[in-house]
Amino acid sequence: MERQDAALPGDRRFFERNGPFSLRALAECAGARVEGGDEADDAPRYVGIAPLQSAGPQEVSFLDNRRYAPLLEQTRAGVVILAPAFVDRLPKGTVGLVCSTPYLAWARVAGLFHPVPAAIPGIHPTAIVGAGADIDPSAQIGPFVTIGAGAQVGAGSRIDAYALIGDGVRIGAHCRIGSHASVSHALLGDRVTLLSGARIGQEGFGFAVGPDGFETVPQLGRVVLEDGVEVGANSTIDRGSSQDTVIGAGSRLDNLVQIGHNARLGRCCIVVSQAGISGSTELGDFVTIAAQAGLIGHIRVGTKARIGAQCGVMSDVEAGADVIGSPAMPFREFFRNVAVLRRLAKKATQNGGGET
Amino acid sequence: MERQDAALPGDRRFFERNGPFSLRALAECAGARVEGGDEADDAPRYVGIAPLQSAGPQEVSFLDNRRYAPLLEQTRAGVVILAPAFVDRLPKGTVGLVCSTPYLAWARVAGLFHPVPAAIPGIHPTAIVGAGADIDPSAQIGPFVTIGAGAQVGAGSRIDAYALIGDGVRIGAHCRIGSHASVSHALLGDRVTLLSGARIGQEGFGFAVGPDGFETVPQLGRVVLEDGVEVGANSTIDRGSSQDTVIGAGSRLDNLVQIGHNARLGRCCIVVSQAGISGSTELGDFVTIAAQAGLIGHIRVGTKARIGAQCGVMSDVEAGADVIGSPAMPFREFFRNVAVLRRLAKKATQNGGGET
Amino acid sequence: MERQDAALPGDRRFFERNGPFSLRALAECAGARVEGGDEADDAPRYVGIAPLQSAGPQEVSFLDNRRYAPLLEQTRAGVVILAPAFVDRLPKGTVGLVCSTPYLAWARVAGLFHPVPAAIPGIHPTAIVGAGADIDPSAQIGPFVTIGAGAQVGAGSRIDAYALIGDGVRIGAHCRIGSHASVSHALLGDRVTLLSGARIGQEGFGFAVGPDGFETVPQLGRVVLEDGVEVGANSTIDRGSSQDTVIGAGSRLDNLVQIGHNARLGRCCIVVSQAGISGSTELGDFVTIAAQAGLIGHIRVGTKARIGAQCGVMSDVEAGADVIGSPAMPFREFFRNVAVLRRLAKKATQNGGGET
Repeated sequence: MERQDAALPGDRRFFERNGPFSLRALAECAGARVEGGDEADDAPRYVGIAPLQSAGPQEVSFLDNRRYAPLLEQTRAGVVILAPAFVDRLPKGTVGLVCSTPYLAWARVAGLFHPVPAAIPGIHPTAIVGAGADIDPSAQIGPFVTIGAGAQVGAGSRIDAYALIGDGVRIGAHCRIGSHASVSHALLGDRVTLLSGARIGQEGFGFAVGPDGFETVPQLGRVVLEDGVEVGANSTIDRGSSQDTVIGAGSRLDNLVQIGHNARLGRCCIVVSQAGISGSTELGDFVTIAAQAGLIGHIRVGTKARIGAQCGVMSDVEAGADVIGSPAMPFREFFRNVAVLRRLAKKATQNGGGET
Repeated sequence: MERQDAALPGDRRFFERNGPFSLRALAECAGARVEGGDEADDAPRYVGIAPLQSAGPQEVSFLDNRRYAPLLEQTRAGVVILAPAFVDRLPKGTVGLVCSTPYLAWARVAGLFHPVPAAIPGIHPTAIVGAGADIDPSAQIGPFVTIGAGAQVGAGSRIDAYALIGDGVRIGAHCRIGSHASVSHALLGDRVTLLSGARIGQEGFGFAVGPDGFETVPQLGRVVLEDGVEVGANSTIDRGSSQDTVIGAGSRLDNLVQIGHNARLGRCCIVVSQAGISGSTELGDFVTIAAQAGLIGHIRVGTKARIGAQCGVMSDVEAGADVIGSPAMPFREFFRNVAVLRRLAKKATQNGGGET
Repeated sequence: MERQDAALPGDRRFFERNGPFSLRALAECAGARVEGGDEADDAPRYVGIAPLQSAGPQEVSFLDNRRYAPLLEQTRAGVVILAPAFVDRLPKGTVGLVCSTPYLAWARVAGLFHPVPAAIPGIHPTAIVGAGADIDPSAQIGPFVTIGAGAQVGAGSRIDAYALIGDGVRIGAHCRIGSHASVSHALLGDRVTLLSGARIGQEGFGFAVGPDGFETVPQLGRVVLEDGVEVGANSTIDRGSSQDTVIGAGSRLDNLVQIGHNARLGRCCIVVSQAGISGSTELGDFVTIAAQAGLIGHIRVGTKARIGAQCGVMSDVEAGADVIGSPAMPFREFFRNVAVLRRLAKKATQNGGGET
């Protein structure tokens, strides 16, 4: 196949490209100080972004990690976004955009060159729209989309192919609903993004034991995704049983994440891929849950707590705590246990006892 | 956004509502004894269900957990379903429906007010139906559904939007196939429910090592879902390689569950979210597998065994056993090990040896 | 329901069937030596495959596992594929096809009787094809498929119902894209298979912390799936952030697998169900990752390393290493630790200290 990194980043087959932009425009976008250049320069000199090692004089790059500082000294990039600590390693002829948060500045400059495509207003002729649905004229409804009766879609929102929006569902403004997603029994705020195959609002895992097996307990709650929530591909969020399942504003869920019925996440929580949160568990704000971690039901996790990868959380976690392991324990204790067990096991085997 | 718990449970935008019902009807549905009311009262006084703290005189609530008993004493609910132990804490003016299984009674009463919508007979004009497919006239086939040649869909079954039913697939009576689900090489009994995005019958993970890499082993079995099986959103059940993959009657699988080829589950098994069962492993009846647990292939798990969350099962499990940990061990042993290691580690660090 | 193993393997409702074939054809396909028969026999005597216990004189079976050798002595199969070690246990009247890799031979013979259905050239009238898309006339485009502008689909490739192929995506020859799959920002080689619901090329989990919460970092890379790659049902592969996410030729991913942005897998890697590989991690060739294992980001795993089930890999793994546990350690060390801890815990409890 063709060389894999050809035309990267921003392969024109896949990504829109704006520009060129001037140093002044870049500095304003980055909120950065100009080092080694004229911050008033309005000439549109810069055409795109590139990594340090491949960037040319018309391209913008960035340095965020000390490990890559040697690449900075070799770069031919026209502009590099970087932290003050690295300014003195800028090569001749490369302008620095200096700021305390270079990664954030990079995100904004990259978005300047490669904006998220805006919604193209209109409803595809193959889409099916139910009675009384209220779709803003500026929204984009893709091919084979189904919008239920009485559903609402806000201004500038984009609903991709094969998405199913159930009866009565409310979708706010500037949302992106990915292809093949299903949304039912749900209220979405503004700027909510669902990636492809996300499942929002299906019935939760609720049943009672009857004489002839399990009997379903009606799941009569909803899902509420507050403003700015993002949900990854093929993730699943069950609706509440009698209350709501709530994802707080600005929270981000990765792919293949499971959220059980009645769970409540605070603002700006992060849930990494393949993690699961069981029913009725509540998270404060800014909680981070790493990949493949699991939380049992009916517990509370305090604000800014951090749950490590593959952690098994069986009880409440205090605000600000750092836990890992299954069952969960403080990071320090977990790694101490690992070290001690290794030592004890070595000793035991030296004594020939390891295999008993 | 609007107050999140407004209109809950049973938001009229999303849920049908029957009623009002009389005390007599409720008592019959619940199979409960009436305490503090007239069990013969036929007047349709009760309009819906609500939690203890918000229920009013025309609403029905329930108490299942000792923790919430204080709420019972404060409730304004017209009727409360509860266990005999709590009868003496019923407030004045609240009728008790007393039974030994209040949660089951609650499930039935909630279903009385909010029944699962019945299938609306008919085939949507956008659906594609293959040659020789046999669809019962009482079945509902949704928009953009594809039904393969020679497939069968039984009485009262509902196939939601974008579901793909492969050639020759048999779906029994009163099944619900969720949106975006795919079903191939499969035989489904009656009352089978698949939630959105479930994948049933795709080829399993089977290959042999050849001189130029892996070669696929044809997967020539099927998937059999017996009566009453429920499969969660985005779960995956591979067809057998030469036998069948079988899920026993009444078993319930949660979201994002993986079932490998030739696996056989008995009756009324429970598999919680993100758990996985590898190929050719066999479960007895009433086995419970908690979230994120994993079973290797070619093992047997006995009837009524319980596998804990994140458990890694590498060998057979006896009937009735309770295991957890990775590798799996008895619950008691697991937590004893955790306690002992903590103590040993503390001691070791006191001796300054923890970091070696 | 009907007897579950009726008509297995190769239920005619679900599988094509070729044949009958002669002993000579079978021997050539298997690359095997004929034992107890005439290798030149051209008579088409054999109609299908079956397990040892049910195969009849016109059927072909195989033995790969010593455990099933007793079944060999009882079999009525006309032909059995087996290793030299079992030849002397062949019953009278059963011909042996003897080879050193019987499972591989079996895969090929099974494929002879039950070939993967070839693409039926043509574009279904309900499919939507974007401007400038280049679809080979021999490709099969199923119902409700969407092909983006400028996309390419190669010779003999099959795109199943509801699959979404994004703008500019390149799909090589003889690929199979399963139903409900989505592919964007991606370049696929030849003979690539995606099972139903696979998500290829969506934006990765990338954001920076801004003053008002998280801000998305544009994900400007692609996904490259090299020749012969297979991806399981509902698995997710994020596109790169600025480079590519690459799955090397011949690698096979099972169901519900997550691959983060910029990850790079070598040739012929195996990733079993529910495992996850975090962003920017690199695997050599022939790496095996067992079910539910997780790898953190930015690490390297050497060629032929084997990562055990549920393993939590937090640092580089050497070529050829065998690791398991969380954190990952050598297999031998892991099981030694388990044994030693069990012994220490027993001793501690005998001393009455276990509960402190």
